[in-house]
Amino acid sequence: MDKVYAYVDEHTERRIALLERLCRQPSISAHGVGLEEMAELTAEAMREYGLDVELLPVDGGPPLVYAEVAGRSPQTLLFYNHYDVQPVDPLDEWTSPPFEPTHREGKLFARGVSDNKGDLAVRLEAVAALREVNGEMPLTIKFLAEGEEESGSPNFPAAVRAYKDKLAADVCLSEGTGIGPDGNPSLVLGVKGMLYVELSTRTAQVDAHSAYATVVPSAAWRLVSALDSLKQPDGLVAIDGFYDAVRPLVAQEKEALAAVPDTSEALRELLGLEAFLDDLRGYAWQERLYGAPTCNICGLETGYTGPGLKTVLPARARAKVDFRLVPDQKPKEILAQLRAHLDRHGFSDVAIQPIADHERAVRTPVDDPWVRTTARVAEAFYGKPPQIAINSPGTAPMDVLVDEVTSSLLFAPGGAGYEGSRIHAPDEHIRLSDLTEATKMTAHLLQQFGESNP
Amino acid sequence: MDKVYAYVDEHTERRIALLERLCRQPSISAHGVGLEEMAELTAEAMREYGLDVELLPVDGGPPLVYAEVAGRSPQTLLFYNHYDVQPVDPLDEWTSPPFEPTHREGKLFARGVSDNKGDLAVRLEAVAALREVNGEMPLTIKFLAEGEEESGSPNFPAAVRAYKDKLAADVCLSEGTGIGPDGNPSLVLGVKGMLYVELSTRTAQVDAHSAYATVVPSAAWRLVSALDSLKQPDGLVAIDGFYDAVRPLVAQEKEALAAVPDTSEALRELLGLEAFLDDLRGYAWQERLYGAPTCNICGLETGYTGPGLKTVLPARARAKVDFRLVPDQKPKEILAQLRAHLDRHGFSDVAIQPIADHERAVRTPVDDPWVRTTARVAEAFYGKPPQIAINSPGTAPMDVLVDEVTSSLLFAPGGAGYEGSRIHAPDEHIRLSDLTEATKMTAHLLQQFGESNP
Repeated sequence: MDKVYAYVDEHTERRIALLERLCRQPSISAHGVGLEEMAELTAEAMREYGLDVELLPVDGGPPLVYAEVAGRSPQTLLFYNHYDVQPVDPLDEWTSPPFEPTHREGKLFARGVSDNKGDLAVRLEAVAALREVNGEMPLTIKFLAEGEEESGSPNFPAAVRAYKDKLAADVCLSEGTGIGPDGNPSLVLGVKGMLYVELSTRTAQVDAHSAYATVVPSAAWRLVSALDSLKQPDGLVAIDGFYDAVRPLVAQEKEALAAVPDTSEALRELLGLEAFLDDLRGYAWQERLYGAPTCNICGLETGYTGPGLKTVLPARARAKVDFRLVPDQKPKEILAQLRAHLDRHGFSDVAIQPIADHERAVRTPVDDPWVRTTARVAEAFYGKPPQIAINSPGTAPMDVLVDEVTSSLLFAPGGAGYEGSRIHAPDEHIRLSDLTEATKMTAHLLQQFGESNP
Repeated sequence: MDKVYAYVDEHTERRIALLERLCRQPSISAHGVGLEEMAELTAEAMREYGLDVELLPVDGGPPLVYAEVAGRSPQTLLFYNHYDVQPVDPLDEWTSPPFEPTHREGKLFARGVSDNKGDLAVRLEAVAALREVNGEMPLTIKFLAEGEEESGSPNFPAAVRAYKDKLAADVCLSEGTGIGPDGNPSLVLGVKGMLYVELSTRTAQVDAHSAYATVVPSAAWRLVSALDSLKQPDGLVAIDGFYDAVRPLVAQEKEALAAVPDTSEALRELLGLEAFLDDLRGYAWQERLYGAPTCNICGLETGYTGPGLKTVLPARARAKVDFRLVPDQKPKEILAQLRAHLDRHGFSDVAIQPIADHERAVRTPVDDPWVRTTARVAEAFYGKPPQIAINSPGTAPMDVLVDEVTSSLLFAPGGAGYEGSRIHAPDEHIRLSDLTEATKMTAHLLQQFGESNP
């Protein structure tokens, strides 16, 4: 790999120029800003790297950018990226304008420079390095970049189903993982799923004077009681059957979890918590965070919420509730269980409005051959044993990829960012040295995938 | 009384001119608009009616307007009025400007024309009629007009305590009652009390990503569970001791309630309700509405309440809760019971912030001599048996008057408005014919009070 690494070092300026070019184009999916332009720019850049590029039309959204380069081994790898970015608010907290990439102290600042344009630049440069140095690719590479990830990927599942033959791969590398505080590489083997609903009650056409509270039903009390019925006093979800489909962690997953450094104290300080639920810490905290499903109130609003005193009996109330699901919970089944629970507890008047697409959890086994190869390469490259999260506590629309396209999906080292990259926040940035290392790591990983045929 | 009634008829124009003059002066206590000016104008008008007037300074608020006229009998009556009005929003729903009194179809439109400037005009004109026609007043009359009623009378209790010797009276007539749909006179013998609190929870310094919901405590869940603990499944308040001080209705009160026409169906249609709580109707509805205390959620806010999807775990939540109290519940005791309840049920982290002054309920007995005389006069005047509400389901700061100033307080026929007067709403108005009748009724009542010495 020395020649490949040398190539990567020699092309530092090109790599940075590519990333700056990608970051100069605004592409905010939440505001519908610059997405078509960004898809064109992404395609143009990929063509310059010698890939066969297509813009795949998406019903109701900006196109998928798809590209392919054939390789020696019979296996195929799919890179998942997204070319859209988060909004830039609050704009006045940026030290330099978010769409004018700016260098300061060995870092490059721009919206999207880490999440996720940096990863794309890394991957294109890694492919170029392998092809230029070796004259061929170790395995066939497919690129897929969507334009609505930061808005919940509403049109991604249907699009993947439409193009599933084209996208078929033996393994999918989702967004790259960054580097931890001690330089540790990390693997993340999946995501939690999600069911997001709005629960609402309506007891009258108009709010009433609160003097009528003895006789007039209250939307606020109905919703509060319905919500409270969803949790047991011990914090577990009280919906019948909610945990039935939860796949128990196997020994290897527990071992992996136990090896992940305990970051609970840092999170506790960041959030200003007195303590975690049930005073969790150590392994118990890890297992709960990564392994348990959630039922969370994202928001609730009813009646008068302004300053001072107003005496009103609300006719309407609504709450946003998200469930983070784990394998093998199915969002549709949870939705049906929720409805049945509310009906059984006398809350058939509480309406359930699903919001956004529902996603199942994805958790690639720890002993998956692609995972084992990735772990081995990461340890060799970084000189430290990798930390393996059985899945992210967060959610991404990866289930459709596992259903339609690949049997192995993971988030592997080779991301452009690090834990301080401030993604989604003002002054998003990467360290330029990480950009180089990530490119080498990615090239190394592709080379090993091609040689070992996991 | 024929000469008095003739006098009232002859002075119709003066009466209307007085009311228009009072209504032309904006006096919105919620916005601090025009209160000093309105106090001066009220005092000026009272002086023109031959009363001895004083502006009594109030700590932290606009002055009380006080006036007195001596009478023949040894007894004294205190009229309670307020010279402030509700805000006028939404302004564009007014047919004519709210502070430009306008006549249409036998009605006079203006903010405050019914609530409560009309009542003051009626009372001044009734006093004038008796004095001019008879050469003396049948009993001593005191006028008290405050300027913050529409803002919860925050400074009224302290002011009444400061001036209690001056205000002392045998009976207090609070705001006048209007005329019901069938022309029925109504007596209201008191008000409910109130305890208004904000309950709040704070579990962290900042909101967390909802992916942490398995391990991070949620302010939303804490508040929802705490609130739900306040009610039993049957709707009764679950706070230990909450009902202990509730004074049972006596037979006369039940009889009075049973005689009040059932307005539940009209309210049901107005609010667009399917049914009342527990499908209440008839006497059971009346007894619950007038006789039972409440615990009501006025408002609740936590987390993200905008459109679409945001996945957040709220660090803060707050709810506004009002308790309408009945005799002999004491707001301070209920507050202590609420704190004890939350502590006992594991919610010592839920903060309670009392908002505004707390008021006890007032309920003058049905067989109070002033009540009986008023009922007799109303029946004679209107030709219909009066309806007697044991108290309003609503609240007003009458407890301090009963504590410091008088032993008998009631809301008696002689108000300028009717049930369609749209008080607190756009196009507030009175019927001019009601203004005349109310003046005659008030003069009649004062005359009978003087003659019968209740």
